[in-house]
Amino acid sequence: MVRVAGSLMRRVLGVDLQDELKKHVAAKAADLVRPNMVLGLGSGSTAAFFVADVGRRVVAGELPGLRCVPTSFQASVLANENSLTLTTLNEVDTIDLAVDGADEVDPHLNLTKGGGGCQTEEKLVDARAEQLVIVVDSSKLVHRLGEKMPIPVEVLPLAYRQVGQKLTTIGGKPTLRMAKAKAGPLVTDQGNFILDTEFEQMDNPGQLEEQINNIPGVLDNGLFVGLADKVLVGEEDNGKLSVREL
Amino acid sequence: MVRVAGSLMRRVLGVDLQDELKKHVAAKAADLVRPNMVLGLGSGSTAAFFVADVGRRVVAGELPGLRCVPTSFQASVLANENSLTLTTLNEVDTIDLAVDGADEVDPHLNLTKGGGGCQTEEKLVDARAEQLVIVVDSSKLVHRLGEKMPIPVEVLPLAYRQVGQKLTTIGGKPTLRMAKAKAGPLVTDQGNFILDTEFEQMDNPGQLEEQINNIPGVLDNGLFVGLADKVLVGEEDNGKLSVREL
Repeated sequence: MVRVAGSLMRRVLGVDLQDELKKHVAAKAADLVRPNMVLGLGSGSTAAFFVADVGRRVVAGELPGLRCVPTSFQASVLANENSLTLTTLNEVDTIDLAVDGADEVDPHLNLTKGGGGCQTEEKLVDARAEQLVIVVDSSKLVHRLGEKMPIPVEVLPLAYRQVGQKLTTIGGKPTLRMAKAKAGPLVTDQGNFILDTEFEQMDNPGQLEEQINNIPGVLDNGLFVGLADKVLVGEEDNGKLSVREL
Repeated sequence: MVRVAGSLMRRVLGVDLQDELKKHVAAKAADLVRPNMVLGLGSGSTAAFFVADVGRRVVAGELPGLRCVPTSFQASVLANENSLTLTTLNEVDTIDLAVDGADEVDPHLNLTKGGGGCQTEEKLVDARAEQLVIVVDSSKLVHRLGEKMPIPVEVLPLAYRQVGQKLTTIGGKPTLRMAKAKAGPLVTDQGNFILDTEFEQMDNPGQLEEQINNIPGVLDNGLFVGLADKVLVGEEDNGKLSVREL
């Protein structure tokens, strides 16, 4: 197995291979969906392939009674485009299964999420799900959370500076995420800002997750500790694609 | 000293007396303000008297260089009406003094706040302040937080039901606060809902404050543990008004 970072993988193996891995693992996850389920729809590129696969099964009549709870505007839009019936967190008693992507997966199945800025809504759905299955390509496996990306922290706009100072006092280096298709800071689906926060040390990610959430002005953060039940990893070896289950 | 609940005090002593107590204690707090301070302006009826008093000192030329950080739209509007110069959390390095009200004060100076729905922004300002002075009339003193009112929990609208279920599992009885001047749920200054949550037991309010804040979908809650430096209590005894310092 070749373990390379996303950007390196793109350079070495081509962006097409990474997409093939994502499609492969998404298809495996789509097989887990059953009729009459309440299904949480993750955000991000791998989850998008999953939504498309589930949509094909719905159109084929394989999944009567399926209702889906989105984790973002992205997931809602994709669900609409792929013939999935949507519902909301406030209308369901339980979520049977959620399938979501991740930016990093450590050996304990703890995750970093929020590269796509949807971590607050994702955590609502993922924490609620009876079973949370994470779908990633092998470039997302890390030894330690925070290895490849900072931790996204969603904050009230009126408090971004104050929260940033507080994050600094607990060892973080926060950077206000900027938008690319509008001037100024990125605004999340919930109307807030994101502080992408580097931590050199992260001995206890579960404790850090709670510590960050207790800072006034923070909505939630991209550490997902103890939530994933299963991780499906798309891998390539000598041109052969496979899915490994963690 | 007569210790009676607000509503009883109103019946027994008249609403005018309670307002007199609030004015009395607010005036004492206004004496603490110095020129060039960054001052946090609390929300609620007692804090409103405080803003008016500070405004009179500003108009009298006693407080050059004073800049104020509001805790709510209410505080902003009152500041504008009372000639106070406003700034924001993102523009200041520190808040020298914050003066705020409370709905309950326990013997350890821990507070319940949020009867006015502003607890999230209040906690940002109050937690940031070098010195936090709480101004209350004597009807706000309790033996145990939660004695007279439920704990307000600010939640993302998309998650009110899910958060409510989670609050139930930790011993709470949540009620969605309804608006009175519009149809449907009350919407906070930050665009969210409030679950007023009763807890029969509250042995460790600091732990409960953190536990609630770690529920996905919660912004903050009305428990303010370990934040107040000083509480000024307006009291009446045989027709004589006084201020006691806790």
